[in-house]
Amino acid sequence: MTTLPDTPFARVDRAKVARNVARLRAHLDDLGVTWRPHVKTSKALEPTAMIFDGGTGPITVSTLAEAEFFADAGYTDILYAVGIAPGKLERVARLRRRGVDLMILLDTVAQAVAVADFVAGHGESLPVLVEIDTDGHRGGVRPDDPQLLEIARVLADGGAEVRGVMAHAGGSYFATTPQAQRDAADEERRATVDAAERLRAAGHAAPVVSVGSTPTAHAASDLTGVTEVRAGNVVFFDLVMAGIGVCAVDDLALSVVATVIGRGPDDASILTDAGWMATSSDRGTAAQAVDQHLGLVTTDEGEVLPDLLMVGASQEHGVLAIRPGVERELPDLPVGSRVRILPIHACATASQHDHYEVVAGEGEPCSERWERCRGW
Amino acid sequence: MTTLPDTPFARVDRAKVARNVARLRAHLDDLGVTWRPHVKTSKALEPTAMIFDGGTGPITVSTLAEAEFFADAGYTDILYAVGIAPGKLERVARLRRRGVDLMILLDTVAQAVAVADFVAGHGESLPVLVEIDTDGHRGGVRPDDPQLLEIARVLADGGAEVRGVMAHAGGSYFATTPQAQRDAADEERRATVDAAERLRAAGHAAPVVSVGSTPTAHAASDLTGVTEVRAGNVVFFDLVMAGIGVCAVDDLALSVVATVIGRGPDDASILTDAGWMATSSDRGTAAQAVDQHLGLVTTDEGEVLPDLLMVGASQEHGVLAIRPGVERELPDLPVGSRVRILPIHACATASQHDHYEVVAGEGEPCSERWERCRGW
Repeated sequence: MTTLPDTPFARVDRAKVARNVARLRAHLDDLGVTWRPHVKTSKALEPTAMIFDGGTGPITVSTLAEAEFFADAGYTDILYAVGIAPGKLERVARLRRRGVDLMILLDTVAQAVAVADFVAGHGESLPVLVEIDTDGHRGGVRPDDPQLLEIARVLADGGAEVRGVMAHAGGSYFATTPQAQRDAADEERRATVDAAERLRAAGHAAPVVSVGSTPTAHAASDLTGVTEVRAGNVVFFDLVMAGIGVCAVDDLALSVVATVIGRGPDDASILTDAGWMATSSDRGTAAQAVDQHLGLVTTDEGEVLPDLLMVGASQEHGVLAIRPGVERELPDLPVGSRVRILPIHACATASQHDHYEVVAGEGEPCSERWERCRGW
Repeated sequence: MTTLPDTPFARVDRAKVARNVARLRAHLDDLGVTWRPHVKTSKALEPTAMIFDGGTGPITVSTLAEAEFFADAGYTDILYAVGIAPGKLERVARLRRRGVDLMILLDTVAQAVAVADFVAGHGESLPVLVEIDTDGHRGGVRPDDPQLLEIARVLADGGAEVRGVMAHAGGSYFATTPQAQRDAADEERRATVDAAERLRAAGHAAPVVSVGSTPTAHAASDLTGVTEVRAGNVVFFDLVMAGIGVCAVDDLALSVVATVIGRGPDDASILTDAGWMATSSDRGTAAQAVDQHLGLVTTDEGEVLPDLLMVGASQEHGVLAIRPGVERELPDLPVGSRVRILPIHACATASQHDHYEVVAGEGEPCSERWERCRGW
C-alpha cells in the first residue's frame, strides 16, 4: 500500500517505536525483571511483537476483547488489569479453557467472594492478583490494610489461586522531576513487595509482584522483589510523557496527519480537517508546567512548528493557533497543506482510530497498516 | 439478541429517539422547512430512518466515510458539511458518479480555485455551498465580506455550481436562555439569507439556504428565506443540550451502561468499568451554570441518582462521587451493580462505540443492535 491515505489518519513511525522499545527493554534487562507490556495504548499486534523480537510474551490488557484478540494471535500469558466485574468471570473462564493463563485483578472482599463462588461452582481455579494502592490515586488496598489478608483468605478458601499483587503508581504521572519519579518508583516497589510479603507470611504463594506505570518503569533503579513491569505507553509516547521528561518530543511515534482547510475569524487561526474525532479531546498537559492544549503541530516532514498548537476542536475541525501569550505570525500553511498533530495522550488519540498507517522512518511512505482491537 | 451485553456498552432507548425526532419534525413542519439532519451524532442507519418514517431523505455528513455508508443504504441527497480539502475531490466525484447528489462546502478562494480546477479537468460539475460565518465561532465568510462574491465568481467561472450558503451557529451552544437562543436563530437566518441574496444579485442561482445547530433549530420561530435545517444531535440529546434548556434530562436517549467494580481511596468514590474509552472525556458542561463533569449517573432502571456524578476517568475506570460542595452519602451500589452514565456530549460518547444496544423503551431488554459508521 503506497497511496497517500486521506486525512485525518493515525501515522506511526516504526523506527521510533523500535527505539523506544529497545531503550526500555535494555533498562528492564539491567534490572532483571520481566516486561509484561500493557497493550492498551496500541491495541495492535505489530508494535507488541516488536517488544518480543517478533514473537509473543507476557502482556497486560485493559479489556477482555484485547485478551481475546491477542489470544487469537498466540499470546498465552495475559493479565487483565482492571478490577473484575463478577459478570465477566464466565468469559474469563472461556479464555482459560482455551489454554490462556489469564490472570484477573481485584481489590474488594465482594469481588473475592464472587470469584470464590464462581470457582466453587465450576471446579476450575482462577489466578488472581490483588490490587495494591501505593499512592491513593485510584483503586487498590493499602499494603497494611486488614482487607488484604481477608481478600486472600476468601480466595484461597474458595479454591482460587492467590497469584500475587499488582500496583499502578498513577500518581507518578504528576511527578515532574527525575527524583520525584524515582521516589514514586521506590514507593511502588516498597508497597507491593510489602504486600506480597504479608500474603506469603499468611501462607499464600503470591509469586507475582507486578508494578509499572511508564514513568516509574523508566525511573526505577532498583526493583528487588518485583517480578514484572507493565509499562506500555512507551511504544508511542506522548506529550504528557514528554512534559514530565520521560521522553523527548522527538521520541513520539504516533501523530495525526491533517489537511489545512481554511482560516478562522480574523485570520487568527488555521482550520484543519482533524477535530477531536481524530485526536481525542484529552487535556492531559493542562496541569503541567507547559500546557500543550490539544497538541503540538509539525510540518508534514515532522519539524515542530514553533509555538503552533492545536487549541480547539469540534468533531471534524481542528483549530491551530499561536501559543497564548506568544507574539508570532501564523506559519504559511495554505489550504491543502498537510500537518501532523502530536498527541497529548497516545492511548486516547490512538483509540479514535481503527488502524495505523505505518512508515518505516521519517521521509518514508506509508507502507504498512496495523489494525487495532476495538470494543470490549 | 436478548442476552445481557457485557459492560461497558452504549444503550439507546428507541422510544426516546422517536419522541425527540417527532418533536423537532413537527416544529420544522410548522416552519415549512426541509430537515436535512446531521447524521454525525449517531452515524447509524436506524435512527436516521426514524427521521424519514423508515425511508431515506436529505442528510448532512461530517466525513466522506459517512457519505459512502449512507449512499450504500440508498441515500442520494447528501451535504458534506466540513470545508473541503482539495485532495478529497476525487472521492467526492466518485460518489457523484454513483448517482449521489453530494454537495460540498468551502469558505476560501483557495478552495474555490481547487474546485474550479478540478471541475475544469474532469468535465463534471460539483454543487457547492459557501460557508457563512454568522457569529465568529469557527469558519465561514461574513455575509458582507467581498470574498463571498469572489469565491462564487471563481466557482462559476470554473463551471462549478453555486448551490447556496450554509451556516452553523456554533455560538448558540453558549446561549443559555430561550431569548438568547431565539436571537442566535434570528441572526443565523438573517446572515445566511443576506448572503444568499448577495449571491443572487450577482447572478448566481444559490437556491439553498442551510442553517441549523440543534439549539437554533428548536428555538427558531421564523425561518423565512431558509430552505433547510440540519440539526442532528436531537436524536440522542445530551447534558450540554439539557444544560441550556433545549431538552430535559429525561429526553436523553443514549447512555453508557457500566458495572461497579469497587471503591476509591477512603471510600469517597465508586469505581466502575466505564472509563473515558466508553464515555469520552468531553467536558462540554464545564463552562455551563451547572457542571456535570463527565456525566450524570442513573440506576440501571434509569432513575437519576441524586448528586452522583462521574467525576474522573482513566481508560477503563470511571470514578463516581457526590457533586463537589454537596453533603450526601454515596448511594449503596455494591460490586456488580449496574449504573448508567448520561453523556455530556452525545456525539463524543457515541464515537467511542462501534454499535448501540437498543431497547424499545424503559424496562425493555436489549433487542436490537445498531452499527455505526467509523473512520474517514
